[in-house]
Formats: sequence, structure tokens, C-alpha cells
Amino acid sequence: MNVQAIERVGNKLRLLDQTRLPGELVYNDYDNHRDIITAIQRLEVRGAPAIGIAAAYALAIAAGRLSESQFSLENVRELGRGIKAARPTAVNLAWAVDRLLGLLPDGSIRAQPEVVSMLWREAEKIHEEDRAMCRRIGENGAELIISGDAILTHCNAGALATGGIGTALAVMYVCHEQGKKIHVYADETRPLLQGARLTAWELQQAGIDCTLICDNTAAVLMAQGKINHVIVGADRIAKNGDTANKIGTYGVAVQARAHGVPFYVAAPTTTFDPDTPSGEQIEIEQRSAGEVTEGFGLPTAPRNIKVYSPAFDVTPNELITGFITDGGVKPGGRPT
Amino acid sequence: MNVQAIERVGNKLRLLDQTRLPGELVYNDYDNHRDIITAIQRLEVRGAPAIGIAAAYALAIAAGRLSESQFSLENVRELGRGIKAARPTAVNLAWAVDRLLGLLPDGSIRAQPEVVSMLWREAEKIHEEDRAMCRRIGENGAELIISGDAILTHCNAGALATGGIGTALAVMYVCHEQGKKIHVYADETRPLLQGARLTAWELQQAGIDCTLICDNTAAVLMAQGKINHVIVGADRIAKNGDTANKIGTYGVAVQARAHGVPFYVAAPTTTFDPDTPSGEQIEIEQRSAGEVTEGFGLPTAPRNIKVYSPAFDVTPNELITGFITDGGVKPGGRPT
Repeated sequence: MNVQAIERVGNKLRLLDQTRLPGELVYNDYDNHRDIITAIQRLEVRGAPAIGIAAAYALAIAAGRLSESQFSLENVRELGRGIKAARPTAVNLAWAVDRLLGLLPDGSIRAQPEVVSMLWREAEKIHEEDRAMCRRIGENGAELIISGDAILTHCNAGALATGGIGTALAVMYVCHEQGKKIHVYADETRPLLQGARLTAWELQQAGIDCTLICDNTAAVLMAQGKINHVIVGADRIAKNGDTANKIGTYGVAVQARAHGVPFYVAAPTTTFDPDTPSGEQIEIEQRSAGEVTEGFGLPTAPRNIKVYSPAFDVTPNELITGFITDGGVKPGGRPT
Repeated sequence: MNVQAIERVGNKLRLLDQTRLPGELVYNDYDNHRDIITAIQRLEVRGAPAIGIAAAYALAIAAGRLSESQFSLENVRELGRGIKAARPTAVNLAWAVDRLLGLLPDGSIRAQPEVVSMLWREAEKIHEEDRAMCRRIGENGAELIISGDAILTHCNAGALATGGIGTALAVMYVCHEQGKKIHVYADETRPLLQGARLTAWELQQAGIDCTLICDNTAAVLMAQGKINHVIVGADRIAKNGDTANKIGTYGVAVQARAHGVPFYVAAPTTTFDPDTPSGEQIEIEQRSAGEVTEGFGLPTAPRNIKVYSPAFDVTPNELITGFITDGGVKPGGRPT
């Protein structure tokens, strides 16, 4: 499994265009932060950790492209604010940009080359740390799984969503490495089908046994006793454990509780947001109607029909059995 | 609202090709029962009551096309068995064919024209009865709804699924006629998007306020308190109240109970199957992987990925608040 969603190539950022998967393997090289913002918005790169890494590289690129006369620390901060606005829900985006901006010395003027190479170094460091966190998440989560288990996941919290082997899928990769025989059920994850296009593809590439289902089929599998664990990723985890993740996650969590199936959120510690007290404060991005009504090249709904399409939902802590993090497995609010 | 999914035109059956909706309004005229079986299998006509009516007309057409030398009551029965095998889950299909076959006198030979016109008359009678049942279902269900209510429905149990104004949607049509202000949330209903393509279209044609959602979004709306009732159709209701309906219905029922939202099944008395003791005996048709992996006209999943795609699921009676039938609203097994 050598899929890499994000790579630094010289002073450019190389992104695997995830909107083209699984049909085509297309890499785009970017040397302009505005194009990276667009790439984030059109989900060419997605997944909270991956967005954070891309955003960090975008800021380094942007700072490097300022002309000598434009360059100032204030202008770098301004560029950071613009990048942070690309998508509102994922905490990692703001976190990564703020981490780079935090290195800028207050007020004093530094030479552009020095600042720019510092930003590149920090972006690479975030990337490397993410890779290591993914591995630890996988190792910690794998302890919950025994050979023969079937795991349901929603959306894509895999290598394509991170700088490493993923968060939820890291658990599956590590189990597979350890020789545990696991089966993964992948929710296709409407509207943009990240489960079908990305998770099923990643797992197939890695030789992990996977069955694709429509989102509305998970409940039946749980009723049949075919799911032993649910493991999903997260875009932001509030201080009280409420978790924002891809739309549909909340529904899976309700089903999991109703059927007595443990429900885990796998995420790096960077996805925990101490500044957000609870899920109520998490801003939920709305997606365009067209993703639902003609997402795949032809209209599948009548013209001008109203559509409600939030990108994310919030699963309250009391539906979460535990959090699989790089620091260990921490209990959630759901009684076990 | 004058959508008619099924119509007798001379000695032919006219079907509105529902696979082409909402983009195109295409009617096909059939004078061969094999083509009608194919039309049923490819969901050109779908919905338990509509399939029953189409099957009845198919048998009349088939009996009429037998040559003089081929004609025998046994051969008519044989044709009936072939038509009944078109789709296994919907009880109405077998019920309608058996009703026609039940009119055939035992053993004795009758003239073909007499038998054929008897079959046509009975098929029309089934069609007319269905129309009347839809109307009564709508009137009975409308008593549960007050102005301002929002109703969630799954799949299409509308005019397109019946010989009349539908079952679940009949309730909404009658409310609309009565001047009650209602709002309908339509699950898009993967994989074949009957909610997006058919329900949203029907309701839009009728001027009923409708919002389309992905199946995985219903739980969030319930958590927000935005759904007052769930009303769905049924393909077969076992003696104990267990109900087979479009895949995803069970999940909606679990969500409805978890959120305290009443869950109703709207169906004509013909959908109740006294010969099936419980849901366990209901055969569930499996659909092809392609409907999930390239349902939108282009591949959206990797090649050769395994897919689990049952056409229906079974909602146990204990999750059902009530059954809205042409004979009144009967309590289900879920405590209110």
C-alpha cells in the first residue's frame, strides 16, 4: 500500500486528485496557494488531517511567492487567514495554519527566505508527525480487533485522508499487517461516495477484504449480527467528546447503539479541539444541491427541487464507545 | 396530478418508463407478456400494487396471444407461474396472478375468447380496486396529520407505484387537497434513487413542498426535531406485522424509534399476506452490484469490488407505530 495523497515535490505540492478516483490516478502539482484552496474546496484533497497538511504547504508556497515589496509578516498572516477559510468544519486546517503562523516573530521584520524556509520545514514536520500519528492510531486500534471481526466504516478516513495510513483505516491496515483476518464493510457515503470511490479502492489496493454497501444497508447488517465494530474518522472533536464527521456518521452511531455494536472514533490528538466546548458550537458546512441531484454526470432528480445537504453531522459523545488516538484508546460517553 | 403509471390501451398495456424519470416522460405499449416481465424486472414499472396490476394485464395479454392449438387452461396457469416469478418479494404480484387464475374453471375446457375477456375484466377490476384503495388509504392517513407537519418518506410509494394516488404519498395528496400545509422530506433511496427520481418528481408535479435528502441525512433531521411522522409503503406484510419494504426502511424505523418519531406503514389490505407468518419467511431479492457501482452512468467504485445489495429489508412489527390501510389505521407493535 503506497498510496500517497500528498507529497512535497521541490517547492510544489503534489496532490492525488481524489475526485478522479477510482477511475483515474491523476496527480496535480501546485505552486499557487489559491489553486490549493480551490483543490481543498472541490475535495481534490479531503480528510481533516490531509487538509491540514495541504494548508500548511499552501502557506509556505504563498509566502514564497510574495514579491519582495509585498513581503511582510502581516501579509503572511493575511494569507493564512485566507487559507483557513477554505473549509470551516475541519479543525486541522486552522490548527496547521495557526501552527505555522505561531512561528512568526511578533512584529519584527525577518528576511523572506528565512521565513519561507521555516514555513516549509514546519509544514514537513506536520506531515511527518501525521504519518507517525496514523501508525500509532492503527497500532492502538488493532488491539481492539480479533481475527474474524467485521468492521463497518463510513466515508474515507484512510491513507487518502491523511499524510500516513489513515485513522479509521489505519486500524485495518495494522490488523492486516499483523495477519488478523478482518472484513470491512464500507458505506458508500452519499453524496460524494468517498466510501465507494476511495475507501473501497484503498482497501482493495491493500488486499483487505471489503464489501461495499449503500448507506441505508448498514442497519440490516447490524441486525443480522454481521458487524462487530464501527470505526470512523473525525473532522473535529469538541471538548465534551461530541464529534463532527461526514454526514451519516450520526445515523450509524444511533444504529450501532440500537444494535449493541461498539462505535469508535479514530483520530489524531490534533483533531481534538479544546476551544469548542460541545458539538453545538461546531459550524456545519452546507454543500451544493448539485452534488445530490446530479453528482455523477447526469440529473437524477427533478429540476429546482430543494435539497438539504450538510457536509457533516455531529455525533454526541454519549453514542461513542471510545476514541482511538495516537495516545491510546480513551473511553467515550457510551456505556459499554 | 394526473400521472398514470399504468393504463390499458386496447389490448395493450401502457407503462410509464420509470427508469427514464425525471429526465424524460416515455410511455411504452406492450402486447407481449415476456416484455412486461422484463419491464417489471428492470423496474420500468415498480411498486408492489403497480406490479400486481401490470402482472394481471400481462396474463390477459399472454392468454390472448396463445394460438388456438396452444390454448388450454393448463397453459394459462403455466403462463401465470412464469409471470409470478418475475420478482419474488412483492406479494401483490402473486396475489394478482392467483386471483385471475382462480377464475379459471377446474379442468373443463372453455373457449379462448371467453377466458381471455374474463382475464382482461378481472385485471381492470384489480386496477380499479387499487385506485379506490389508494384514495381510502390517503383519507385514513390524512387524519393523523395536522397542518404544519413534516413527513419523511423512503423510496416511492406514490402514484407511480400504484394504480391510483399511491399509498404513503396518498396521505400527502389528500392532506394537500384538504388544504393542510405539509412538508415532505424524501429520502433519495439508493441505489436506484426512486425517492429522488420519482417521489420528488411526483410531489413537485402536484405542488407539494418537498426537500430531497440523502438517505444518511434522515437521522440528523429527526435529531433536530424536524420530522413529525415517517410514512412508508410496503411490499409484503407478514401475518405478525413484520413488513418488507425498500432497503433502508428498517434503518429509518430504528432511527424513528430512537428519536420518538411515529413510524407508519401505508398499504392496501392486499399487501397483508396471511400465508407468511413472520418476516423471517419473506424472501429478499438481491440486486446486481452494478446498480451500486455504476448506477449514475459512470463507474463510482473500483472494479470487482464485492457489493451487498438487497432490494428490500424487513422492519419488525415492534418498530411500527401503525398501519394505514384502506380499512382504517391499525396499531402496529410499537408502543405509542
